[in-house]
Amino acid sequence: MNFASDNASPAHPKVMAALAKANDGFAASYGADPIMDEVRGRIREIFEAPESAVYLVSTGSTANALSLATFCPPWGAIYCHEHAHVEVDECGAPEFYTGGSKLVLLDGAHAKIDPAHLQTKLEAAAPVGVHNVQRGMVSITNVTEFGAVYSVAEIAALAAIAKLWDLPVHLDGARFANALVTSNASPAEMTWKAGVDVVSFGGTKNGLMAVEAVVIFDPSKAWEFELRRKRGGHLFSKHRFLSAQMQAYLQDDLWLTMARDANAAAKRLADGIAALPDASLMHPADANMVFPVLPRARHQAAFDGGAQYYLAPMNATLDGPPDDPVGARLVCSWCTTNDDVDGFLDLIRR
Amino acid sequence: MNFASDNASPAHPKVMAALAKANDGFAASYGADPIMDEVRGRIREIFEAPESAVYLVSTGSTANALSLATFCPPWGAIYCHEHAHVEVDECGAPEFYTGGSKLVLLDGAHAKIDPAHLQTKLEAAAPVGVHNVQRGMVSITNVTEFGAVYSVAEIAALAAIAKLWDLPVHLDGARFANALVTSNASPAEMTWKAGVDVVSFGGTKNGLMAVEAVVIFDPSKAWEFELRRKRGGHLFSKHRFLSAQMQAYLQDDLWLTMARDANAAAKRLADGIAALPDASLMHPADANMVFPVLPRARHQAAFDGGAQYYLAPMNATLDGPPDDPVGARLVCSWCTTNDDVDGFLDLIRR
Amino acid sequence: MNFASDNASPAHPKVMAALAKANDGFAASYGADPIMDEVRGRIREIFEAPESAVYLVSTGSTANALSLATFCPPWGAIYCHEHAHVEVDECGAPEFYTGGSKLVLLDGAHAKIDPAHLQTKLEAAAPVGVHNVQRGMVSITNVTEFGAVYSVAEIAALAAIAKLWDLPVHLDGARFANALVTSNASPAEMTWKAGVDVVSFGGTKNGLMAVEAVVIFDPSKAWEFELRRKRGGHLFSKHRFLSAQMQAYLQDDLWLTMARDANAAAKRLADGIAALPDASLMHPADANMVFPVLPRARHQAAFDGGAQYYLAPMNATLDGPPDDPVGARLVCSWCTTNDDVDGFLDLIRR
Amino acid sequence: MNFASDNASPAHPKVMAALAKANDGFAASYGADPIMDEVRGRIREIFEAPESAVYLVSTGSTANALSLATFCPPWGAIYCHEHAHVEVDECGAPEFYTGGSKLVLLDGAHAKIDPAHLQTKLEAAAPVGVHNVQRGMVSITNVTEFGAVYSVAEIAALAAIAKLWDLPVHLDGARFANALVTSNASPAEMTWKAGVDVVSFGGTKNGLMAVEAVVIFDPSKAWEFELRRKRGGHLFSKHRFLSAQMQAYLQDDLWLTMARDANAAAKRLADGIAALPDASLMHPADANMVFPVLPRARHQAAFDGGAQYYLAPMNATLDGPPDDPVGARLVCSWCTTNDDVDGFLDLIRR
Repeated sequence: MNFASDNASPAHPKVMAALAKANDGFAASYGADPIMDEVRGRIREIFEAPESAVYLVSTGSTANALSLATFCPPWGAIYCHEHAHVEVDECGAPEFYTGGSKLVLLDGAHAKIDPAHLQTKLEAAAPVGVHNVQRGMVSITNVTEFGAVYSVAEIAALAAIAKLWDLPVHLDGARFANALVTSNASPAEMTWKAGVDVVSFGGTKNGLMAVEAVVIFDPSKAWEFELRRKRGGHLFSKHRFLSAQMQAYLQDDLWLTMARDANAAAKRLADGIAALPDASLMHPADANMVFPVLPRARHQAAFDGGAQYYLAPMNATLDGPPDDPVGARLVCSWCTTNDDVDGFLDLIRR
Repeated sequence: MNFASDNASPAHPKVMAALAKANDGFAASYGADPIMDEVRGRIREIFEAPESAVYLVSTGSTANALSLATFCPPWGAIYCHEHAHVEVDECGAPEFYTGGSKLVLLDGAHAKIDPAHLQTKLEAAAPVGVHNVQRGMVSITNVTEFGAVYSVAEIAALAAIAKLWDLPVHLDGARFANALVTSNASPAEMTWKAGVDVVSFGGTKNGLMAVEAVVIFDPSKAWEFELRRKRGGHLFSKHRFLSAQMQAYLQDDLWLTMARDANAAAKRLADGIAALPDASLMHPADANMVFPVLPRARHQAAFDGGAQYYLAPMNATLDGPPDDPVGARLVCSWCTTNDDVDGFLDLIRR
Repeated sequence: MNFASDNASPAHPKVMAALAKANDGFAASYGADPIMDEVRGRIREIFEAPESAVYLVSTGSTANALSLATFCPPWGAIYCHEHAHVEVDECGAPEFYTGGSKLVLLDGAHAKIDPAHLQTKLEAAAPVGVHNVQRGMVSITNVTEFGAVYSVAEIAALAAIAKLWDLPVHLDGARFANALVTSNASPAEMTWKAGVDVVSFGGTKNGLMAVEAVVIFDPSKAWEFELRRKRGGHLFSKHRFLSAQMQAYLQDDLWLTMARDANAAAKRLADGIAALPDASLMHPADANMVFPVLPRARHQAAFDGGAQYYLAPMNATLDGPPDDPVGARLVCSWCTTNDDVDGFLDLIRR
Repeated sequence: MNFASDNASPAHPKVMAALAKANDGFAASYGADPIMDEVRGRIREIFEAPESAVYLVSTGSTANALSLATFCPPWGAIYCHEHAHVEVDECGAPEFYTGGSKLVLLDGAHAKIDPAHLQTKLEAAAPVGVHNVQRGMVSITNVTEFGAVYSVAEIAALAAIAKLWDLPVHLDGARFANALVTSNASPAEMTWKAGVDVVSFGGTKNGLMAVEAVVIFDPSKAWEFELRRKRGGHLFSKHRFLSAQMQAYLQDDLWLTMARDANAAAKRLADGIAALPDASLMHPADANMVFPVLPRARHQAAFDGGAQYYLAPMNATLDGPPDDPVGARLVCSWCTTNDDVDGFLDLIRR
C-alpha cells in the first residue's frame, strides 16, 4: 500500500529485461548506440514528427531545464503555474540553466493555468524598453502537480495565447502518458498540433528506472540542446542503457498500458474515497493521483495499517482533533494493484 | 577486439544482478533508499573517512563539475593540466557549474602536472587586488588522460604546493580504481592523506552502467553540494538504482578486481606492442590505456581485422605512406580478454 | 514642469564644482583616490558604523544586484514586494548577478511589504530538503516605488521576521535621503539598528550625476563584494569622479537638503491636487512622488500646457472619455520649484 | 611625472565643459537624450557605418564583456592573447557575462597574436561533437597591453583566419585612438573593413572621465546588446552625462589630438631611454606606452626624484644589485608634457 509517489515504484520487468539485453558486449557511446537510432525513429513515429530532434536524459528536472534554456534567453520570462514542478520542485534548475530567467507565476484551479490570467499577464508585460524582463515562453504541466489533466483544447487555448506574442511553448510531460490515456488524444494532438514546441516526455514516473525524452519539433534547436546537455553533465557515456529503457517503454505500447493501469487504480481509489460520507477530493483525479480530504482519524487508521503517502500540504500533521479534515496526496503507479487500493479503502473505512 | 573506450564496455553481471535485486517493490526516493545508507557507510570505511559526505551522480563530468563548483568561487582559477578531462572533454561544464571560473592550464609529461609549473603559475598569480581572477583550486586527474598514474607521493607534492596558498584539491578519479591498483596505495593514502579535499570516485568506466561517487572529506561542504546537485538536475528520484550499482561495485572488492583485470590486459597489450621493432609507446601504460605509435600499415591491418580504437590525435588519418608512424589510443576494460589482446597483436604483427 | 522622473533632473551645481575640483592632475585609480578615503570615513560616521565597508557604483541596479549577490546564494529566494524595483525595473539584474536566484513576490499596500505576507511566505517555504529553493534574503525598498515611506518601526518589523530564519536584509535606498527626511530617523536607525545588513544608498535620483554607495555592515563580506564589483565591470578606473560626487553630496548635508526640497515640492503638489473635487491620490505622497487620479481632461490640459510626466499604469492612455479617472505618477526633484508646482496646478485646475 | 597609467590622468577641460553644458535642466533618461542622437550619428560617420549600433558604457571591462557575450555563446571559446586585458585584468568579467565561455590563450610577441598560432589552435579545435567547447570568436587588443600597435593588415590577417570558421571578431580598443594615429588608418579600415564585427571604442584612457563606446556593425545584434547592458546594470539613467563626454571627445577630433599628444610624449620618452647605454626597450613603443629595462639604480633615482610608474612584471622590486636590469611600464597621457618626459629622463640619466 505505497502511495507515496510514482517515483518510489519499481521499474517494469520488461525494462529490466531490455537493460540486460542491451548489456551485451561493447556498444558505441554518447548516444551513437543503435538502440537510440531505433528509439529516435519510434518517437518520431509516435509523435508524427519525422523532423523532430529526440534526446534522452535521466531526470525530469533536466528535461525541463534544458528545454527551457534552449528556448528562452536569460532575460526572458517563463510563464507557468505557481504550483508547477519547474517552480516548486527543482531548486531553481530553470533559473540555473537559463542563466537567470524569471518564472512568472499564474493562477488556476487544480494547478491548471487560467488562460485569462496568462493573457492578462502577457498583456501587462508590455515591455517598457529594456527595463523589464521580456516575454519569453510558456510552460504547461500535464498531468498537473495536483493530478488534473488538460484536454487538448485547453492546451491549444494556452498555446494560442502564447503565439499572440510568438512565444514558444513547453510541455512538462513527466506524466505525459497518464495525461494522454485520460484525454484519448494522440501524442501529436497533445503537443505540436496544439502549439507545443518542446515536450519533456516522461518515463521515470511510469515504470522506467530513470529516463525522460525531450522531443523538439523545430530541429534548428537541436544542436544547441545537445551542447547544453553535454555542458550540464547530462550526456551519458554508456547511453545505450538509457536507450534500452525507452525502447522497452515504447514496445507494444507498454508506456500506455502502464499509464492506463495507474490511472485505473487511481480512479478506483478516488471512487472508493468519494463514497465516504465525510470525505472529499480537493482536485479531480484525472490521472494517477488522488488528493482526498479525510478526517484525521481516517488518516491515522491508514498509517497504522501500513499505508504510505504524504499529507498535503506537506506541513499538515496528524496531531489534532480526530474529526478535523486533513488533506493528502496518494499516487498510484503502474504496479498498484486492486488489492493495494482495496486494502487502503478498508483501512480508512473503519 | 574493442579498444575504443572503457565507456563502450558493458556493465559487470554482478551489477546487473544488483539492479534486478534492487528493483523489488517500492523504495524511498531521492537518496533515502536503504542501499544508499549501506553504500555511504562502505565508502567511508574504504576511505577511512567516517565523517566524509558521500554522493552518487551518473556521469563523470557531473562529479567533476559539482566538486569544482562546491570548492571554487566564480572568480577563482582552477589549475589543471592542459589535457585534463575537465578542460578538454566536458564542453565547459566546470565553467558552467562554477559560474564562470577560469581554468589555468599546466604542462607536464603524460598529462601529469609538472609541480614546478604549478608552483610557478601560482606564484605568478600574485593577485593585483581585484583585477585578476584569484587563486581558486587545483584539480588532478588520476589516471591521467594519457594513461599515466600519479604515485601517492606525486599527488602529495602537488597538494603541498596547493596548500601553500590554502587551495582545495580535487582528484578526478574517473579511473580511480585503475590508479589505485597500480600504485598499491589505499584510497585514503591516494586522497585525503595526500591532501585531496574532494574526489570523483569513478565507476562508469570500470564496469558500472552510470555511477560516480563524490567523496567530500570536509562535511561542512555537504549541504551546498546537495543543493548544487539538485539544481543541476542530478538528483535521481529512483536513486536506489544508482545505489545498487555502487553496492555491487564495492562488494568483495569487485571494483579492484575489475581494475586489475583491465590494467593487466593493458600491460599485456603494451608489452606485445613494445616488442615490435617499429613500434613505441607515447606514454607509459601505467593503467588500462595504451598509446602506441605504429606504422600506418599496422593500423590498417588492425582495422581490417576488426579491431576498434581511435587514432591519436583524433584528427590523425590512415591516408598516407604505410610506414609513417601514427599514434593511437587503446583502452582495455574489465572485460577485455587475453584473446582480445592477442588477437590484436596478431593483426598488427602481420 | 518636468515631473517625469528624478532621473531626468540635472546634477546639483556643487556636485559639478566638486567634479571640476577633482579633475586636478593625476590621481590614484580604482578607488585608491584620497577623496574616497574621505568619503568612506564620512559615510561610516553618518551611519555610525565605523567597521562598515563602503563602495561606490554608478547605477542603482548595480548597487542592488551586487548587494543581493553578495548575501544570497544562487539557490536562495529573495523576498521582495511585487512592485519592487529589483523585480520590475532591472531586466533581471538580480537573477543575473546572483547566478539565478528566485524573487518571491509579496503583497502590500503602496508597494510596502505586508509583514504578515512575508511571515506566511517564509513559513510556507518550510524546505522539503533540496527540492525547493531555500530561504535566502529579504529586500525592502524605501522610498517604495509608489512613493510611500516605511517608518523605522516598519522596517524593523520586517527585519525581525527575516531574522527568525537568520536571513540577511537588504534596503534598496535609491531614494534613501527622501525616506530619511520624512521619517526623521538617523541613517543608523533606518538601517543596521533596524536589522538591515546592506543598503543601497542612492545619490543619482537626488542630485548626483551617477553615484550610489553600498554600505555593508558586516565587513567580512567586503572582499567578495569587491570581486563581484570588478567582475561585473563596475569598478571605475578614474574612480575619483565617483568619489567627488559623493563628497559633495555629503558636505554640509547637501543630500538631506535636496531631499527635503524635493519632498516639500511633492507635498505642495499633492496638497494642491487633493484639493480638487474630482481628484484623489492612489498612494500617500510620503516623499517626492505623487500618484494622483485625475479626470482625463485634466491630464490633457496639463500635457497641453507643457507638463511632463507618465500616466500610471504606463499603458494608460489619453484616448477616452474626458471625465474618466486616469492615474499618473509625478516625481519632484531637488530642483523642482514652487513655480513648477503651481504652474502644473494651474493647468489642471482649468 | 606621473607615468603610472593613463587611467590616473584627468579629463580634458573640454570634456568638463561639455558636462557642465549638458547639466542644463531636465533631459530624457536612459539613452534617449538628444546628445546621444548626435553622438550616434557622429560615430556612424566616423566609422563609415550608417547602420551600426552604437552604445555607451562607463568602463572598458564592460565594453569588452558585453561585446563578447553578445557574439559568443556560453559554450564558445574566445581566442585571445595570453596577455590580453580580457584575460588578465578583468577578474573574469568575460566568463561572467558570457555565462562561462573559455578563453583560449595565444602567444605572440609584444602581446600581438601570432596568426600562425591562431590558425593552429583553431584547426586543433576540430570539434569532437559536443565534447569540446566550440570555436566561438576572436578578440584582438589594439593597442596591445605591451604597447604595440597592430597594423590594419595584421588585423585583417587575423580576422581572415577567424572568418575561415565564420567566427566574429572583437577589437578591444581601449586605446583605439592611440592605435589609429600610429597606423594612419581610418576607423573603418581598422575595424569592419578589416573584418572586425564589434569594437570597444575607448575614451576613458584618453581624456574622458568614464566613457567607452561599443560599435556593432551588424545591427541585428543591437537589441540583445541593449538587454545585456541593462541586465548588467550598465544603462545609466542620467545617460546624457555619458553622451556629453563622447560628444566633446569627437568634436574637432579632440580624441585624435589627445592620442597624438600622448603618443608623441611616449616617443620622446622612448627615444630618450633608448639613448642610454645600459637601457633597452622590451616592446616597441608604438603608441603611448614605454616598457624600458633599466639598471635598478636608475629606477631608484627616478622614484627618488618623484617619478611614478610601475615596475614590470608587477612583482619586480627595487631590492637587489643596483646594476641589475629591471623592467618597467611607463604610460603617457594626453596631458603628459615635454617637461614631464624630460624631467624623468634627467632623473634616470644621473
